[in-house]
Amino acid sequence: MSQGEPLRITLIGAGTIGLSWAALHLQHVSATHPLELTIHDTRPDLEDYITKNLLPYLLDNSPTQPNNSSSQKEFLAHLFKTETLKLSPTFPTAVSHAHIIQEQGPENPSFKTTLWPQIEAHCPPTSLLWSSTSGIPASVQSAQMKDPSRLLVVHPYNPPHIMPLLEIVPSPVTAPDVVERTVEFWKKLGREPVVIKKEVPGFVANRLAFALLREAIHLVHTGIASAADIDTIVQNSMGPRWAVAGPFKSYHAGGGEGGLEGFFKNIGGTVQDCWDNGGKVSVGDGWERDLFRQTSETYGIVDTKERDRLTRRVLEAARGGEGAG
Amino acid sequence: MSQGEPLRITLIGAGTIGLSWAALHLQHVSATHPLELTIHDTRPDLEDYITKNLLPYLLDNSPTQPNNSSSQKEFLAHLFKTETLKLSPTFPTAVSHAHIIQEQGPENPSFKTTLWPQIEAHCPPTSLLWSSTSGIPASVQSAQMKDPSRLLVVHPYNPPHIMPLLEIVPSPVTAPDVVERTVEFWKKLGREPVVIKKEVPGFVANRLAFALLREAIHLVHTGIASAADIDTIVQNSMGPRWAVAGPFKSYHAGGGEGGLEGFFKNIGGTVQDCWDNGGKVSVGDGWERDLFRQTSETYGIVDTKERDRLTRRVLEAARGGEGAG
Repeated sequence: MSQGEPLRITLIGAGTIGLSWAALHLQHVSATHPLELTIHDTRPDLEDYITKNLLPYLLDNSPTQPNNSSSQKEFLAHLFKTETLKLSPTFPTAVSHAHIIQEQGPENPSFKTTLWPQIEAHCPPTSLLWSSTSGIPASVQSAQMKDPSRLLVVHPYNPPHIMPLLEIVPSPVTAPDVVERTVEFWKKLGREPVVIKKEVPGFVANRLAFALLREAIHLVHTGIASAADIDTIVQNSMGPRWAVAGPFKSYHAGGGEGGLEGFFKNIGGTVQDCWDNGGKVSVGDGWERDLFRQTSETYGIVDTKERDRLTRRVLEAARGGEGAG
Repeated sequence: MSQGEPLRITLIGAGTIGLSWAALHLQHVSATHPLELTIHDTRPDLEDYITKNLLPYLLDNSPTQPNNSSSQKEFLAHLFKTETLKLSPTFPTAVSHAHIIQEQGPENPSFKTTLWPQIEAHCPPTSLLWSSTSGIPASVQSAQMKDPSRLLVVHPYNPPHIMPLLEIVPSPVTAPDVVERTVEFWKKLGREPVVIKKEVPGFVANRLAFALLREAIHLVHTGIASAADIDTIVQNSMGPRWAVAGPFKSYHAGGGEGGLEGFFKNIGGTVQDCWDNGGKVSVGDGWERDLFRQTSETYGIVDTKERDRLTRRVLEAARGGEGAG
């Protein structure tokens, strides 16, 4: 896109994820960064629906947003009037000038494989094409495209206007240039894009979260703890810890000068006792050397003073006292 | 204990966990809540060791603590002078008047089973007896006690002077009164004690965290993501989310009005795809009914606006900008 020209983003699908994407993009509008955001959805009452449902998302935005009901409606009217926000119930026009097209339609492979060739036929040759799917990889979705190298998954952790993570999941044939431009776009907005190296079911964030969820279900099902107990435990231990330092960094720090290797030397036995036999990996399986090297190279000696200072702040923030804001 | 009398706590073992417990208890000293904290450890240089190593933990305490090096040393000297802090290299005297005895010695069953009968022989009959073990249950540790109903595990999420969670793990014979007094003590200090209903290896927090760790190791080992990628992902998604709302509350909210049941109706297939077959539980195994009832009764409809407001604050706090403190 050329200087001064608005960034044109088209959202296909205005469910909760589409609305959250809209709120995210609208956070970044300014005189020097004009935006033309088009929402395409086939529901008949699109304008009423957007007017009613987008507002709560806009309110989540920065404190500079209008904060009373009539000025909120004026703000939305202003977005429509300036064509910062456009609604497009008809298809080809919605994508014909877009720099970026984000799809969050039904989670249905046949819907998506049919959609992309149509988008491809009507959008500019340089548009970035992103699916928000949580489960249907780009390699499946792009099966009927002329140029499947254009498509990748940009999977948010919901809601994307709040959560920074974006899993960037190319198919094996996605062009490296497409991946780079996608990562660059999100980094400029201050988000946290992470490129996933291979397509796997659920990508990475959900796989990690669901692994913990499975153990949590097992502990409730076997009467060790209630669901509420599990939540209290997580909210007061690994939740705030992992908000500051992810699991590898945390356990690398837990091993002191010995790092992650020291951690497993000290309590690898307890770790294996907590895992059932026959799972995906076990202590002593041979994954250790590469992982210990990675954590040592990435983190060296972790500054636990700084970690603990930030963790205190996170705990205060999560408790919601006005003083911590 | 009677009104005005100092609370007498004895810590057995002055490793990193013992020092952190000391810092935690010293946070709560005041004119109306006098404390007599005794640290028992057999190392020959105990006073030098404590002087050198306890200070960094005290600095982690609230902003009202002294914040320069000479006043810190004076503060510590004051604690010794007023007998708020005492060192006791000899054993029976260390426990003979204690209201609470917390053990964090070597993680070795024979050490602990030998220790408790000695403590029991010398401490008052009403003392609370707590082990900080992460892996040796009270039912094993109390095997040689005259009255095994006195012992339970109070397992912190390290470091305890920062992290609020305390796993309270009674053995099958621990007296309910002992559990109640223990929970009440920690609640008064504003911590988060959770009573674990059965003794299981690793208790609950570590089992949950290690389940996610196992999947994380698997993803690194199979080349899906690097260790640093995993940490970036967790720090920007489930870490901050779970600091505010644990996994069940989060997924219950994710199902909208359908709650956790709605969540599994929508994406139970994806969840099962992420789990390997043959694990502890699977979708459709029969755990659903009780769990869905628990989450509905506990959470009703989750206020996601409030959750998102707090999550934003947590994200700001974790990023460490001075403005968010």
